[in-house]
Amino acid sequence: MKHILATLLLITAIVPWCRSQQLHSGYPITPVAFTDVKITDHFWKDRLQANREVTIPLAFEKCEETGRYDNFVKAAHPDTSYKVEGFSFDDTDVYKIIEGASYSLQTFPDKRLSQYIDSVLDIVAGAQESDGYLYTARSMNPTHPHAWAGATRWSAVEHLSHEFYNLGHMIEGAVAHYQATGSRKFLDIAIRYADCVCREIGDREGQTVAVPGHQIAEMALAKLYLVTGDKKYLEQAKFFLDKRGYTSRKDKYSQAHRPVIEQDEAVGHAVRAVYMYSGMADVAALTGDSSYIQAIDRIWDNIVNHKLYITGGIGATYSGEAFGRNYELPNLTSYCETCASIGHVYMNYRMFLLHGDAKYYDILERTLYNSLIAGISLDGGKFFYPNPLASDGRFERQSWFGCACCPSNVCRFIPSLPGYVYATRDDSLYVNLFVANSSTLKLGGKKVEITQSGNYPWSGDMAITISPQKRQSFTLKIRIPGWVQNTPLPGDLYSYIDDKHTSYTIKLNGQPIEGDLHNGYFTITRAWKKGDKVEVSLDMTPRLVAANHKVAADRGRIAVERGPIVYCAEWCDNDVKITNILLSKKPIFDESYKADKLHGIIELQTNDVQVLNYDATGKLHVQDTSLILIPYYSWAHRGKGHMSVWLPTELYSVELTRPKEDILQNNGFFKQE
Amino acid sequence: MKHILATLLLITAIVPWCRSQQLHSGYPITPVAFTDVKITDHFWKDRLQANREVTIPLAFEKCEETGRYDNFVKAAHPDTSYKVEGFSFDDTDVYKIIEGASYSLQTFPDKRLSQYIDSVLDIVAGAQESDGYLYTARSMNPTHPHAWAGATRWSAVEHLSHEFYNLGHMIEGAVAHYQATGSRKFLDIAIRYADCVCREIGDREGQTVAVPGHQIAEMALAKLYLVTGDKKYLEQAKFFLDKRGYTSRKDKYSQAHRPVIEQDEAVGHAVRAVYMYSGMADVAALTGDSSYIQAIDRIWDNIVNHKLYITGGIGATYSGEAFGRNYELPNLTSYCETCASIGHVYMNYRMFLLHGDAKYYDILERTLYNSLIAGISLDGGKFFYPNPLASDGRFERQSWFGCACCPSNVCRFIPSLPGYVYATRDDSLYVNLFVANSSTLKLGGKKVEITQSGNYPWSGDMAITISPQKRQSFTLKIRIPGWVQNTPLPGDLYSYIDDKHTSYTIKLNGQPIEGDLHNGYFTITRAWKKGDKVEVSLDMTPRLVAANHKVAADRGRIAVERGPIVYCAEWCDNDVKITNILLSKKPIFDESYKADKLHGIIELQTNDVQVLNYDATGKLHVQDTSLILIPYYSWAHRGKGHMSVWLPTELYSVELTRPKEDILQNNGFFKQE
Repeated sequence: MKHILATLLLITAIVPWCRSQQLHSGYPITPVAFTDVKITDHFWKDRLQANREVTIPLAFEKCEETGRYDNFVKAAHPDTSYKVEGFSFDDTDVYKIIEGASYSLQTFPDKRLSQYIDSVLDIVAGAQESDGYLYTARSMNPTHPHAWAGATRWSAVEHLSHEFYNLGHMIEGAVAHYQATGSRKFLDIAIRYADCVCREIGDREGQTVAVPGHQIAEMALAKLYLVTGDKKYLEQAKFFLDKRGYTSRKDKYSQAHRPVIEQDEAVGHAVRAVYMYSGMADVAALTGDSSYIQAIDRIWDNIVNHKLYITGGIGATYSGEAFGRNYELPNLTSYCETCASIGHVYMNYRMFLLHGDAKYYDILERTLYNSLIAGISLDGGKFFYPNPLASDGRFERQSWFGCACCPSNVCRFIPSLPGYVYATRDDSLYVNLFVANSSTLKLGGKKVEITQSGNYPWSGDMAITISPQKRQSFTLKIRIPGWVQNTPLPGDLYSYIDDKHTSYTIKLNGQPIEGDLHNGYFTITRAWKKGDKVEVSLDMTPRLVAANHKVAADRGRIAVERGPIVYCAEWCDNDVKITNILLSKKPIFDESYKADKLHGIIELQTNDVQVLNYDATGKLHVQDTSLILIPYYSWAHRGKGHMSVWLPTELYSVELTRPKEDILQNNGFFKQE
Repeated sequence: MKHILATLLLITAIVPWCRSQQLHSGYPITPVAFTDVKITDHFWKDRLQANREVTIPLAFEKCEETGRYDNFVKAAHPDTSYKVEGFSFDDTDVYKIIEGASYSLQTFPDKRLSQYIDSVLDIVAGAQESDGYLYTARSMNPTHPHAWAGATRWSAVEHLSHEFYNLGHMIEGAVAHYQATGSRKFLDIAIRYADCVCREIGDREGQTVAVPGHQIAEMALAKLYLVTGDKKYLEQAKFFLDKRGYTSRKDKYSQAHRPVIEQDEAVGHAVRAVYMYSGMADVAALTGDSSYIQAIDRIWDNIVNHKLYITGGIGATYSGEAFGRNYELPNLTSYCETCASIGHVYMNYRMFLLHGDAKYYDILERTLYNSLIAGISLDGGKFFYPNPLASDGRFERQSWFGCACCPSNVCRFIPSLPGYVYATRDDSLYVNLFVANSSTLKLGGKKVEITQSGNYPWSGDMAITISPQKRQSFTLKIRIPGWVQNTPLPGDLYSYIDDKHTSYTIKLNGQPIEGDLHNGYFTITRAWKKGDKVEVSLDMTPRLVAANHKVAADRGRIAVERGPIVYCAEWCDNDVKITNILLSKKPIFDESYKADKLHGIIELQTNDVQVLNYDATGKLHVQDTSLILIPYYSWAHRGKGHMSVWLPTELYSVELTRPKEDILQNNGFFKQE
């Protein structure tokens, strides 16, 4: 009786969450939902529009074209002649695109799109078995399921069968669809499948003990608990975490080498890893299990101090799509999977909700403006799976991939962006991202209108207007990015060469105000009145970054940042071969806004650079030259060629080499290890 | 009875060995002893003379000065007040210098020196305990022996107590002294100590099971067996090898990590290692134990393919004075201990005696003319312990070391050189080193006079005259060095860039003759008559060497050789900073003989080189320049400064860097791992 009452209370408590700004997520800090934030930003509107007009239609088309819908139709009418052609997780692309389309509908209502989603959901619903199980790779031909699906339900779920992974993405999509549309159509499908898993998986009699081979169900089930109030989903999420490292699978690849609460290093497949850490944060927030928090705090420290690219990307090695060893951060062969960047945003967002420190948003912002959006072309139609920090000319974005996790993941992430701008805690309002918007959120139970205007990330000047319905006391917490405080990132992986650029100013209604930072936030507590205006001005002078000497690939090199943007040199902007350049020790960069270039960018240019070349007689020549840099995210839009984020300031890092065939031919030297 | 008879036969068999050319060592190939070869060579006479006139007197003087003789006197009259000041192996310096002086006496008879040695031996004899034990570090104060000596006899012999090591050097010195002088004075002391060890060490009842912490007793005991015919010494040597890896000590440092016959990689302390492999070769030759041979063949392959410096030096790391990992061959921090070079000669000499292949002599010659003699100054008075392949100005030879193993080791090695020139097998005579000499050796039981003349290593033209007493059929086997056949070394560690230089010619009595090489030897079988003359001409054009790409320290660099000599650039010959040079891809070197420089050298010079420098504004400038190279062995005779064997041909290996304080100061970057 007590339990039922608690559940009812919980449902009461969470119902308003689903479709409003106040997410009672169990975290100390409360998200402000994407539904409450209206983006007006130039930089992001462009991305949101491309997502809506190109990515989503393209992605749905690819689902049609590649038979992803057919799989659901076949599963609805099983036949022993069916053979699954793709991957056992192809269903999730459909769920992820519905998720993205749902977010998008909130910003751009679109009846035709709503109806299309409905029709897709009809097809999905048809594939659900009577007990809720939904996995087309098995259902379409249960006698000969997909090679990866295992002989029986769950039998290969810790390895190649993605039954729980599919459940996770289904829930993520279904909750977004419910939040955006109010329709329970997708949510009910997800609940039925989740109930099936909760019935069949566990350590009670008659149940199967198994954990996901690819994590995501953990955070999804925590979310389903919040939406439904049914605690069994939270318990299932916790079960998946707590059994990890104790079942048949025990390897680093899937973070199953040790119990999760004993882990202290980011290892294995990077996407699985950050999805798991995000799930641990969610379950910790909802259950108060501090051992989870201690573990993810340790792992976060490990990433930030040893395993994070300057672009915010994670995953150093192609082998296993995995984290490398500490300080192993190669550039040409960096993996930095787009999905891993998205998961890294999820993780840092949750770390912020737990701890309220701006340092997590410094990483989130870095990942967002660099590694993550590099994963999709400016027009929304082409995609990178890995996002290397250097190119020898072999890389270009593709329209789609056989394994389509990355396109469908950016498809769902981009339109969710409005949900990352603000957060609240009691009487405090956090301004976490500088994105022009017009929003109405609740603070102390009262509606407050807030707008941001400006031209971030090109300009560091933002105006924030606060309009409570009537004079209201609360605290505004404006995130002052680490990069303007001479700290590119927490930890000692990266450092600014120069410490001149540590300036920012804050004005309140035209008057400069001073204040200390608390956890990275400039804090103004006052009785706010309608139209109060806060002006934030961040020094956007380009900054030179050096990596810790232990990062072999970056020795004798610098990277250049301006605001949150990491820059790179690309072949097509420069007459000289960018592998052959040598920057002076502290190059000075001029900036100019190019409205017509790459959807509008600030370009950087320096003359403090020389180019090295050998002449036909083998003699080295050095010439003064100039070098143009563009934002890293905007590379690879103009054909294939050289690109590099880290630029040589020392001879030993200049890549110019004599033609190898002249030095040692045919004798097996220069073979790779 | 049978055993006694066998022993008697053996004694009969070996007695002629001791003081004549024919060493019945058990090996398929028979050494020609140092006693039968009279060096007339310009290059080596200089070294032998310096050894006699400077090194030996200096070394004896240091023994006096540092109390090494006093230790023996104190041991003869123990007192509880005595405290050993040096190392527990200081006794061996005395034995090693006597060994060197004995060899020297053969070339330069010197009555005063003989008498001095006699007087030293009187002091040594006085320190021997009544049962033969001779270890001053314990005997001078048995109640408080040297800290390294252990509480009781043998108790620390596998770790810091060098009781067996001292025995080994004692036997080596004693046998040389006996061979050179015919006096048994030192030999009898050694036999008494060896008998003591044979009585007390073993696995019979009442005995102690222990193996040497620092090897050498293995090869010494094998030699003592040959001199005395007493098989117990050979058995003791085999015991030491066979028990290794089974006793209390089991570590890589002393090659006790696995049973010796299971080893396949050169690991741990390099001197201990090559002394052990030499002992294994000796015992294998005398016992026919092929498992030893298989093990040292594997280890030799490992060294040649993965762990050998171009100078023939071994031991990559200061830490543990040890072999590094495969391909770990740093230059500035290369260890290449002088003693390890000597041990490496011992090892390769024995491998040749086992297998009869010239490839072992290619390594022996490389080590001899480069890493080994770099360990002692041209005047014989200063010494290197490590022999780095590059210097940043910190290295200079010293007059002596607290741990004096290297000076006393070169002191004994240099005058033993005549023993490495020839060898015989049945009716074959091997010419292994090109050293001018005049010798009489026995072939088929008959005396054959042989002389070499020429100016090796500066000239590649040598004349060999053969004078049997009367016309005699036999085979002359002339080693054709790998370096003249475009193979700097066996294995794939090093390679010549250019394959133009593969020429050598052989003339017999003025007529060119052709022939195939067998195991690296040009073979002439004929009936030789008095005064037959063979002229050997080796192409001495400088050769450019590249290292396997897996050797990180040598990437983008070349080394230069001429004949058997490895060259280096030293600061004092060049106006430009040698860290800043960039050679063209195939520099051409001119050569000139400088009679008055560094005791006479061929100097190499190239104009195919540029020098790089930053100006005050931080801009890079490149200028044509020239570069002079000198033989590596002759470096560090004119003050301290930069030196490098491996010279940059690629930008990334040019060491010129911007001043670090300008790039990243005070922020903990560039700290070493």
